[in-house]
Amino acid sequence: MAFEKVKRSEDYSQWYNNIVNNADLAEHSAVRGCMVIKPYGYAIWEKMQQELDRKFKETGHSNAYFPLFVPKSLFEAEETNAEGFAKECAVVTHYRLINDPKNKGKLIIDPDARLEEELIVRPTSEAIIWSTYKNWIQSYRDLPILINQWANVVRWEMRTRLFLRTTEFLWQEGHTAHSTEQEAIEETLQMLDVYANFAQNFMAIPVIKGVKTANERFAGAIDTYCIEGMMQDGKALQMGTSHFLGQNFAKAFDVKFANKLGNQELVWATSWGVSTRLMGALIMAHSDDDGLVLPPKLAPIHVVIIPIYRNEEEFNKVTEIALKVKLELEGKSLSVKFDNRDTHKPGFKFAEWELKGVPVRIAIGPRDVENGSVEVVRRDNKEKQIMNMADLANKINHLLEAIQDNIYLKANTFLDNNIRPADTWEEFIELLDAKGGFVSAHWDGTSETEELIKEQTKATIRCVPLQNKLEEGSCIFSGKPSVQRVLFARSY
Amino acid sequence: MAFEKVKRSEDYSQWYNNIVNNADLAEHSAVRGCMVIKPYGYAIWEKMQQELDRKFKETGHSNAYFPLFVPKSLFEAEETNAEGFAKECAVVTHYRLINDPKNKGKLIIDPDARLEEELIVRPTSEAIIWSTYKNWIQSYRDLPILINQWANVVRWEMRTRLFLRTTEFLWQEGHTAHSTEQEAIEETLQMLDVYANFAQNFMAIPVIKGVKTANERFAGAIDTYCIEGMMQDGKALQMGTSHFLGQNFAKAFDVKFANKLGNQELVWATSWGVSTRLMGALIMAHSDDDGLVLPPKLAPIHVVIIPIYRNEEEFNKVTEIALKVKLELEGKSLSVKFDNRDTHKPGFKFAEWELKGVPVRIAIGPRDVENGSVEVVRRDNKEKQIMNMADLANKINHLLEAIQDNIYLKANTFLDNNIRPADTWEEFIELLDAKGGFVSAHWDGTSETEELIKEQTKATIRCVPLQNKLEEGSCIFSGKPSVQRVLFARSY
Repeated sequence: MAFEKVKRSEDYSQWYNNIVNNADLAEHSAVRGCMVIKPYGYAIWEKMQQELDRKFKETGHSNAYFPLFVPKSLFEAEETNAEGFAKECAVVTHYRLINDPKNKGKLIIDPDARLEEELIVRPTSEAIIWSTYKNWIQSYRDLPILINQWANVVRWEMRTRLFLRTTEFLWQEGHTAHSTEQEAIEETLQMLDVYANFAQNFMAIPVIKGVKTANERFAGAIDTYCIEGMMQDGKALQMGTSHFLGQNFAKAFDVKFANKLGNQELVWATSWGVSTRLMGALIMAHSDDDGLVLPPKLAPIHVVIIPIYRNEEEFNKVTEIALKVKLELEGKSLSVKFDNRDTHKPGFKFAEWELKGVPVRIAIGPRDVENGSVEVVRRDNKEKQIMNMADLANKINHLLEAIQDNIYLKANTFLDNNIRPADTWEEFIELLDAKGGFVSAHWDGTSETEELIKEQTKATIRCVPLQNKLEEGSCIFSGKPSVQRVLFARSY
Repeated sequence: MAFEKVKRSEDYSQWYNNIVNNADLAEHSAVRGCMVIKPYGYAIWEKMQQELDRKFKETGHSNAYFPLFVPKSLFEAEETNAEGFAKECAVVTHYRLINDPKNKGKLIIDPDARLEEELIVRPTSEAIIWSTYKNWIQSYRDLPILINQWANVVRWEMRTRLFLRTTEFLWQEGHTAHSTEQEAIEETLQMLDVYANFAQNFMAIPVIKGVKTANERFAGAIDTYCIEGMMQDGKALQMGTSHFLGQNFAKAFDVKFANKLGNQELVWATSWGVSTRLMGALIMAHSDDDGLVLPPKLAPIHVVIIPIYRNEEEFNKVTEIALKVKLELEGKSLSVKFDNRDTHKPGFKFAEWELKGVPVRIAIGPRDVENGSVEVVRRDNKEKQIMNMADLANKINHLLEAIQDNIYLKANTFLDNNIRPADTWEEFIELLDAKGGFVSAHWDGTSETEELIKEQTKATIRCVPLQNKLEEGSCIFSGKPSVQRVLFARSY
């Protein structure tokens, strides 16, 4: 195992791919644009799922499951949504294969098994879900409906990158139905907060909460709220979205309820989702030139113990203590790996577990055994310390908390340092090219200007931050009057 | 809410459909053959998943995720497997929709976006996974690979029933790779035991472990092991399968490893799965004419508390105690619902929660408050008792254990009473028609005989039980010599 190391500063994109590959997180599959999520990568995703699921249930949501396929006629019903996703839809047209009469052992589509109506593999589930909600909702007593689903979705992508943009990806999608506009908007914002808190407290990634412009809105939404993170190369990454859908889907599927007065009203909707894209954010936000750096709260393995020995006698002595330490740490709910492979030297193991981002490494040698101490190295800043064995589990727990905090603080400082104002077009271009990051600038509020800026700079408006300060100014591009600054960035 | 009640004895099939619908477990969707799993049904499935996932990890397996799609050329590679599933494959042929020029607002397939190679929506994942394992396995050091995936799969079904047989269903599929035949067989049997223990200890359904005949084997397997349950209408239900795949997939995908001597050998494989079909088993095994009966270990709600009152004063008094009880029970990890709806009478609530199978109902009225007691009714046998409030949580926990045991014992007695020997063809037919259940009979071991019996009676060989007693006899159908009895039944 000789890993090709590439520095972030040399080739950020290759650095990212190497970490995904070398840390055994995911790989490209035999299916164009689809990935295999490997066990170590999936274990991190499971940790994310667990915590998000807990938060969804805490806020009153239940899980359910809706079909993978959407009949074309339902898919078409909400026209803006359909148009937005039409160009990236995988379509099932047949339901049977038969033996190829010309080619023994090969199969061909059975021409007699053509579907009367094509089925779309869900790119998102509003259509199938709202066609179902129609039957569930008669009266205000049936509302709200607060449902989430964990599922796979497919959006045909021409240029894919592991985790960041794949044809099939895993996600959760919340779909809620409400009797009032206000309640739906509150739900939209509540879930945005759930996402922001998760990003900050678990992924250790500070995010900016904001609302998308019309150009960047989810197809079919009235408003799309988002959390935006900043990666180490100065590019923004949209990490989650929460949509206020107004009555668009209720209109498309004729979903009405009788209010308390007995009058029929259209139902209000939200939807919100995060995906395996978060894995990409996690990798890019914290990792360094030696590999993955994981916040302890999402690390499948918190501590790796590596024995140092020259002969079997020493190995046995060290193993005894290592197993004791392992047991003690596991007693405090820590996940511990004792790497006793005799096929690899300690130095190799150190590098491998650094690559995999295990937050704490403990090395135990014969001298440590004599001294009643162990050598502890934290992954985030590589600091080494000798720890007395007494009360070790508590000390390690404190250390893990310190690591979680430090990773967050580092990312937060980075974010703070990468939001810069620009007041002229030249300054704007120069900041984007020389520094990257978010550029806070005035914009005249029109889609045309936004488009032109994107064409000329590849930067998009990431969001209008929530509680944005109103401030009179002139649009960076058109010079027309503007009432507030918005955040531009190049992005993933 | 006026539920149509149908007795098991009158129309078993309608009785089943009514429970699925009325207990809010699942419903048919707008997509032919696909179901919507509703929140209450999904909560039961989540409980199953949790426990199975725990058992898989305990036995050394990790979760991962492989693509939804299988390119046709990979799908074809293992010919027996491909042939077995070909006639039920959903096929993706296009990746884009465009506006219908003749029909504003409608979409059609873009004829220019035809895939060069069709993609099969996975009916099972051996092909895509073994084409991936090929790159993961070089040496004996890379083995075993012990991976499970939770996923949706699609098998085009002409006649569907909620949970029991649907075009899309949810399942887990384990796929393991081993260096020796023996290790692979041990894995196959270990996972069969995991399933059997889960069925018995969590679902409270006793099962028979056995091996399938060649006719009933998984396409591509050397041996298919199964657990078979007995439903209340005397039909068998296959609840889980564990396959020893030999080297079939290794051959198809050329997956070899260097053994300790440096020689190349083909890898040995297993796969094993259970699906949302288990929901059907759970419903059919225990429920009664009043609705669902859930074993406490899989019940999303353990206890429902229903207040009995005539006026607001009484309601407040009762509510105070109800909330105290709720808190105390929740402190013992019980899931408790306090049904304080003022829109429904207690009798209605009793019936509704019976329908939903909540194991324990507590009613609290003003007199109970005065007496410091509550009325407790168990769902399984409807027994009512007055319980003193002192130490209530422990008493309820004991009661739940007793319910779990009782449900299992009842099902076990039913199973025992429904395995009957037949020694003549007439007896065989009569038993199948009059009693149903498993019929233990001699069989000559040929597929031809098995086929003919199936044609004439609709009964199949459910399995050859593990550790089957060898016993000389004559085939029930052909009269030819037989070395053992096998279990026949009509089945789902």
